[in-house]
Amino acid sequence: MQQAIEINDFTVISAQATMAADTHGGRAKCLQRLIRLDMPVPRTVALPFKTVRAIANGMGPDLGAILAEFAQDALFSVRPSSQDSDWGGPSAVLNIGMNDARFTGLSDEIGTDAAALMYLRFVQSYAVNVARLDPDEFTQPIERPREALDDALRAYFAETDEVFPQDPKQQLGEVLRSMARAWEGTTAHLLRQAKGAPADAGLGLVVQEMKLGVGRGNCGSGVIMGINQTTGERMICGRFLGQSQGRDAMDADRAIYLTRDARGPSLEERHPELYAQLLAHMETSRGKLREEMEHEFTIQDGELFILDGIRVTRSARAAVNVAVALAQDKIIAREDALLRIPPNMLSELLHRQVAAGTDRNVVAKGLAASPGAAMGQITFSANEAQALAAQGEKCILVRRETAPEDIRGMNVAAGVLTERGGMTSHAAVIGRGLGLPSIVGAAGLSISARDKTLTTQDGLVLKAGDKITIDGTTGEVLVGEVTLVEPSLDGAFQTLLGWADEVRDIGVRANADTPADAQTARNFAAEGIGLCRTEHMFFDGDRLTVMREMIFADTSEDRRAALERLLPMQRDDFGQLFEIMAGLPVCIRLFDPPLHEILPSDRDGMRDLAEAMNLPLSDVIARVDQMSEFNPMLGLRGVRLGITLPEIYDMQAQAIFEATAAAHKRGHAVTPEIMLPLVSAKREVELLKIRIDAVASAVMVSSGQTFDYKLGVMVETPRAALRAGDIAQHSAFLSFGTNDLTQMTYGLSRDDAGRFMSTYVQQQVFAEDPFQYFDEEGVGELVQIGADRGRATAKDVVLSICGEHGGSAPAMAFARAQGFDYVSCSPFRVPVARLIAAQLALGRPS
Amino acid sequence: MQQAIEINDFTVISAQATMAADTHGGRAKCLQRLIRLDMPVPRTVALPFKTVRAIANGMGPDLGAILAEFAQDALFSVRPSSQDSDWGGPSAVLNIGMNDARFTGLSDEIGTDAAALMYLRFVQSYAVNVARLDPDEFTQPIERPREALDDALRAYFAETDEVFPQDPKQQLGEVLRSMARAWEGTTAHLLRQAKGAPADAGLGLVVQEMKLGVGRGNCGSGVIMGINQTTGERMICGRFLGQSQGRDAMDADRAIYLTRDARGPSLEERHPELYAQLLAHMETSRGKLREEMEHEFTIQDGELFILDGIRVTRSARAAVNVAVALAQDKIIAREDALLRIPPNMLSELLHRQVAAGTDRNVVAKGLAASPGAAMGQITFSANEAQALAAQGEKCILVRRETAPEDIRGMNVAAGVLTERGGMTSHAAVIGRGLGLPSIVGAAGLSISARDKTLTTQDGLVLKAGDKITIDGTTGEVLVGEVTLVEPSLDGAFQTLLGWADEVRDIGVRANADTPADAQTARNFAAEGIGLCRTEHMFFDGDRLTVMREMIFADTSEDRRAALERLLPMQRDDFGQLFEIMAGLPVCIRLFDPPLHEILPSDRDGMRDLAEAMNLPLSDVIARVDQMSEFNPMLGLRGVRLGITLPEIYDMQAQAIFEATAAAHKRGHAVTPEIMLPLVSAKREVELLKIRIDAVASAVMVSSGQTFDYKLGVMVETPRAALRAGDIAQHSAFLSFGTNDLTQMTYGLSRDDAGRFMSTYVQQQVFAEDPFQYFDEEGVGELVQIGADRGRATAKDVVLSICGEHGGSAPAMAFARAQGFDYVSCSPFRVPVARLIAAQLALGRPS
Repeated sequence: MQQAIEINDFTVISAQATMAADTHGGRAKCLQRLIRLDMPVPRTVALPFKTVRAIANGMGPDLGAILAEFAQDALFSVRPSSQDSDWGGPSAVLNIGMNDARFTGLSDEIGTDAAALMYLRFVQSYAVNVARLDPDEFTQPIERPREALDDALRAYFAETDEVFPQDPKQQLGEVLRSMARAWEGTTAHLLRQAKGAPADAGLGLVVQEMKLGVGRGNCGSGVIMGINQTTGERMICGRFLGQSQGRDAMDADRAIYLTRDARGPSLEERHPELYAQLLAHMETSRGKLREEMEHEFTIQDGELFILDGIRVTRSARAAVNVAVALAQDKIIAREDALLRIPPNMLSELLHRQVAAGTDRNVVAKGLAASPGAAMGQITFSANEAQALAAQGEKCILVRRETAPEDIRGMNVAAGVLTERGGMTSHAAVIGRGLGLPSIVGAAGLSISARDKTLTTQDGLVLKAGDKITIDGTTGEVLVGEVTLVEPSLDGAFQTLLGWADEVRDIGVRANADTPADAQTARNFAAEGIGLCRTEHMFFDGDRLTVMREMIFADTSEDRRAALERLLPMQRDDFGQLFEIMAGLPVCIRLFDPPLHEILPSDRDGMRDLAEAMNLPLSDVIARVDQMSEFNPMLGLRGVRLGITLPEIYDMQAQAIFEATAAAHKRGHAVTPEIMLPLVSAKREVELLKIRIDAVASAVMVSSGQTFDYKLGVMVETPRAALRAGDIAQHSAFLSFGTNDLTQMTYGLSRDDAGRFMSTYVQQQVFAEDPFQYFDEEGVGELVQIGADRGRATAKDVVLSICGEHGGSAPAMAFARAQGFDYVSCSPFRVPVARLIAAQLALGRPS
Repeated sequence: MQQAIEINDFTVISAQATMAADTHGGRAKCLQRLIRLDMPVPRTVALPFKTVRAIANGMGPDLGAILAEFAQDALFSVRPSSQDSDWGGPSAVLNIGMNDARFTGLSDEIGTDAAALMYLRFVQSYAVNVARLDPDEFTQPIERPREALDDALRAYFAETDEVFPQDPKQQLGEVLRSMARAWEGTTAHLLRQAKGAPADAGLGLVVQEMKLGVGRGNCGSGVIMGINQTTGERMICGRFLGQSQGRDAMDADRAIYLTRDARGPSLEERHPELYAQLLAHMETSRGKLREEMEHEFTIQDGELFILDGIRVTRSARAAVNVAVALAQDKIIAREDALLRIPPNMLSELLHRQVAAGTDRNVVAKGLAASPGAAMGQITFSANEAQALAAQGEKCILVRRETAPEDIRGMNVAAGVLTERGGMTSHAAVIGRGLGLPSIVGAAGLSISARDKTLTTQDGLVLKAGDKITIDGTTGEVLVGEVTLVEPSLDGAFQTLLGWADEVRDIGVRANADTPADAQTARNFAAEGIGLCRTEHMFFDGDRLTVMREMIFADTSEDRRAALERLLPMQRDDFGQLFEIMAGLPVCIRLFDPPLHEILPSDRDGMRDLAEAMNLPLSDVIARVDQMSEFNPMLGLRGVRLGITLPEIYDMQAQAIFEATAAAHKRGHAVTPEIMLPLVSAKREVELLKIRIDAVASAVMVSSGQTFDYKLGVMVETPRAALRAGDIAQHSAFLSFGTNDLTQMTYGLSRDDAGRFMSTYVQQQVFAEDPFQYFDEEGVGELVQIGADRGRATAKDVVLSICGEHGGSAPAMAFARAQGFDYVSCSPFRVPVARLIAAQLALGRPS
């Protein structure tokens, strides 16, 4: 009995009815609100999720009871009412109840043509959406409605061997069943899950008495909204079409504008009183529903009805503008404005985008590694990219994978496309750091650097010089050039982030390696640099050669001599960073990668180096070979280099301190932070602290300046996390490098994971790719252990996350819960992270 | 005042004196014991460590007070008394107190020649050891003692411009000072620390009244011990020499044997009553000191004196025999016998050794990776090694480093020598597994496989075919052939280990991959196989080709077809293991390494493969290149292969179960254990458990046999340890693979660590190489976390350590403290581990 009641459950929407968006859907709930606001909403019955689910399973509802709620010969529309209108749903069906008898009756009331059009609309809609007949058979032209209706009814009979159903109860039952079932289809499931719906999201349905929009007197229908959907600017938008139903006005050439400000005829001019009523309803809904709504309306014989209200679908830019405007108008609180913007939406605003509605000739797809769109000539080498840049040509650097020596090319390219690599591969990390649109792991592509060709999965061969567009926001590679839309960081964007900064309680710094990065970080109001990776500073032409000489040096003296030449350049690097970030902390990580990354990897490069160093090629090959490692990730790098070849860190420390002294001399107090990578034992920190302190003292003496500095540790080995209690004895800060920590915790190289990660995620071996989604259960526990033990030893130790996850919501929620001081992320991620931080402070679950 | 008393502290040794080995040294303590046993020990004064330390610092002692303890014109010897006699010490000095006056007096008593010899001995000893004069000036021939004495006294004057000191007090003071200072020398420090002495080990000294051994009547001196030092066999050994002092008898051709059983004249025949006294003392000391002692004795005018007693220095084999014999004679408890043998000493017994006293022409030194000595021709490739083996020639495989494809060569070689790699490199691990003498990381060597030459650091060039000997116990490479001693596993060895098994409380299994390994493990009484690495089974010629075909297959069907051909071979592998280990558990780890390890790495190999597979060479090169990984250790291997290419594990499971069914059919109940490598998430285990269960069911149906099996996990990623609670839900056992766990915890590849590990250990960045010494602080904590969480979920989950550390004392102590069920180690390590386990159970600290 209980079940019987439940599956027959429905509600006549009224101000008093018990309804909610999570039982009856957003549309039903909204209709109730409109009723409470005294808007002229036609009588409507709402079927909750459970009833619709029962219908999909072949049960209920009590159609007689539903029909009894309406006038005897009413017609009905049925519309979907999912919890969130973004999740989609089946198309609306209008004019249910039309049959031969009603057609005859209506013909008298509103004329045969109008009645025939209504009946035709229903037959076509029913045939296609309910009876699932061939749509091509139901495209009768409407110029001669009566004939078109007869054709449609004949076609229905021909296809089904049955006359078109005449019983309104049967019609309604079939419509409800077909809509309920459509919701359960696989495609519908996938589509709504892609928009964030849970797997068990329900569908409600609303059955509404039709206001006709056709017939005698002033009749018609339209759609109205109060903003421009693209910009968010407040203005009346929409259309009206006389003698029409539903959303006909949106597509018809004959439809008129609503407001007199627009070009052409308008509803405001033709029916000022109706327009005034509409405007009043719009103001009411904005003010009371606290949202920019889109309303369908119908005018029947001069009387206005509001059929519906849903959130205006809008661009990211519009969303920000609307939220800020609502808050500024005191309609919503600033906190609500902050919570209304999905943080990732801000990314769209920071980068060029392929214009909406562009015809996308997609020839390949990879991972969307760094957002934004870019166009340019295909080029297959960093050198060519530089040559093209020198000629003012835009190019897309296409590589199997990128290596540090490609950075010069990436710096000048408009975008990067690689065949291999995952979301944290070199190309992806650098691309995001540079704000450079990047697609990585486009596995269907076959790149031949020798032939200078790029072959797609479909066999299309693209050559160097051919134009392509990459969309780093979607991962799509398009052939040719398309229209791009420039980023827009307008006042509302800045206002919103200002509000975010007022409420958030965790710091946001940027990972920035170059003055350009630092400037971007500063522009986005980062609170400092959380990770400056110094190795990228060594890949510029001249420096690379000196570094290679240093590596080839056999004695400490020779290494020192080579590094001596790099010193002024490094000092200048840091000087620029200090100047750009004036007043903000700059955390510099000392040299980290294995030395062989600095050496050439191909024969040409080795020959060049042999010439430059006046050595036999065989010597260079042997040396490069000797320095190769089985597992470079786990080899001689980071602090291990600092201990075994101390000259490098000595030089870097000197450069940092000399730049600090110079800043002090200019009156800028700078407190540099020096970070040691890949630590696994306390003694590593002890030994280097002694050396670095000595360098600091020497620079203070030689410069006559006194300054402070902080030495800290990048916690990125599991052992450093476990031994953080020891390590914190000598560390002013602990910054968790979650990239490497994830690699070591899983025993999984990010560069090699691409081969099987998709299989793993598909089979749900891993819930998510841990390089994209912070692994709270494993990596997170080590971070927590490290933080707890570090603080137990040194209660004021500064804690942060500086790995790629740093700007992600789950990692930020975790860091905030642990009381961390800040996170550090790519410069272009900083605004997103600021908003995430604000939302976390406001209690939004991550 | 307190200090003055301390630095003058000395003790006349008596039965009642308060003395201990850790304050006065072992020799002093032993002399007290001999006195308590009523042996005729001359009057002796013991200087404790603190007094000797004060002497070294230029203070004390009160020589007058010491001399006052002796007769007016006594002569003295001074001998070192360190805590453990193995730790060495300065040479004894005899006849202190001799001067011109005493010489004159003694000449009357015992004759001029005898008195001159005594004075000469003292002058020579004093000149060289105390005054540090040129030894060449003090080698006066003793045929004419009086002249020799005069020469020596003249030489002393010539070198020092001073007459030889005549004051006995001055003589004694200088002797004590020089001996105290010698103990503090750098060389002495290093030597004793190499034998396990702590850095602050102290030296005691004993001043003993001389019994002359020369003079009128029956005089002489000798040394006696009750065992053969090499074999441990109970027999009277030693020498006696009339008219001699100290240990003269041991070197003199004229010395006679002690017992009549020996060839030639004997003390027993010449002086049966003295011999009988000696024998009685020997019996007493063995029975009461509970040890095989070596005694110096002197006979003065027919009266026997026992000057001294120290443990007989003995070989490993003798040590075992002595301990067992003492226990069997109820002189010591079995527990004491077990505690007396340093476990690593057993390794010496298990392998051939270079004979003691061999002239060692050492041309290179590397890490002693796998103990034992081997001789053979140098060969530079696995193929040549096989060819030589086919001709019955012994060879040493010399490689820069070894790869899995070298295993065939290692299997037939007598030993392995590599230029690169650490204690857990491929060559070292396989070498130990095979019980194959191996030296790795012989960094001074330069190997040219192309020229087939091996160049030492000194420029010596050795060619293929040259004979060398490698000593894997010391890491030394010798040129040419030398005498080797065969291993001896006699009854005492077996008896001792039998006792060990009675007391130990943690299991010992073996890591065994082949029937030969398994047989060794069984011979050494391993309690099962704890780790059978199946990948080594795929490197045999035929199988390798099939595996490569499997890797090149594009479809699941083709992979299955290739694996189908391997199935019978794998089934046979496991069948043999089950037969050898009948009744004992066999834990089989499924395929673990990255697939490209199976592929050829050089051009020749690729050409062979291209031919075998009828593919273009370029295809093979491309495929090999495509499968290469940045960090193979962290790549597509282990359980990740099991999930992405499930056909391999399916085949292995089928082979295991079919072999199990066949064993059941023969009436042997076998419960195979299947272990999944490189797990990092519970779901990996869940997915594979479903597949493996299905294979088991299918085999039960097809074979008509029912059997049981256990599925477990090798915990070797930090994440698996952290998530052991989840993982144990589906695991019958958790076996900690400490090799990989150490690599990942430190972020340190064992193959790459060699470059800087020595620097790191020298600078004490790491206290020890964590691949050799279990890192209890870091890796250990993860093991503990894993064990605790595993048991919290599944209290009966079987826990073990199967990494390289498995048989080491610290790891075993750790595993035992955590209540683990067993450890697993190399077959040749099993006896050592059994003894370690016994000692741990008996409370010896690790």
